[in-house]
Amino acid sequence: MSKNSIVLTVTLACFFAAGCESVQVKRYGSVIGVKKEMLEDYKELHANPWPEVNRKLKECNIRNYSISVRRMPDGDYYLFSYFEYTGDDFGGDMERMAADPITQKWWKETDPCQTPLPDREAGEWWAPMEEVYHLD
Amino acid sequence: MSKNSIVLTVTLACFFAAGCESVQVKRYGSVIGVKKEMLEDYKELHANPWPEVNRKLKECNIRNYSISVRRMPDGDYYLFSYFEYTGDDFGGDMERMAADPITQKWWKETDPCQTPLPDREAGEWWAPMEEVYHLD
Repeated sequence: MSKNSIVLTVTLACFFAAGCESVQVKRYGSVIGVKKEMLEDYKELHANPWPEVNRKLKECNIRNYSISVRRMPDGDYYLFSYFEYTGDDFGGDMERMAADPITQKWWKETDPCQTPLPDREAGEWWAPMEEVYHLD
Repeated sequence: MSKNSIVLTVTLACFFAAGCESVQVKRYGSVIGVKKEMLEDYKELHANPWPEVNRKLKECNIRNYSISVRRMPDGDYYLFSYFEYTGDDFGGDMERMAADPITQKWWKETDPCQTPLPDREAGEWWAPMEEVYHLD
């Protein structure tokens, strides 16, 4: 095997290995209420998400995005979201997403299902949670 | 470049690329109350987790594990956990973790901080949430 081949092999291996985890990741966890009488609608929508909405999320550097639901001790249902952001301009990417007509149409379906937390900050819809622990 | 070198290069590249995402992943989201008066203790513990506990989690095929906290509309605080399981025997791995003396000692510190949800199933501590949406 020539020296050049070895260099190419190692370079390619590093390239693929780096592709795994070298990207900068910021995690976001948030919570919002979901109206009991609209929970099934919400679940139905998210069991069949619009491909354009998923594509826009990806374009805006969102990955590994999950939403879960649980009835809490107050008897109400809440949604908990977790996603990873891999870009370097979160505000800009969120603005880009909010400006997308299909995403706006999607939110017209999902927003009426939700009840934002009363103590959220001005301008927030989902309320952010505080991360207290992380293990890679 | 010889044919052998090309085969080796492609094989290595595939190996590293596969290392990224071919592993089977199951996501777990759960919730539990945290006593307001012990929230700071809980945060302090998790800001400096014991290396042996983290190591045992990894050994038991847990990765990308985050815990977040939020005050909910009932005025109480709750912890929300998200992790990914990459093994093929979740029950067995959880038993292995529960049998670890250092992990047991850790739980002696963390359990008194928590208030499990009243409607959890028998044998549960953290109560599982239902995933309604996921985007890779």
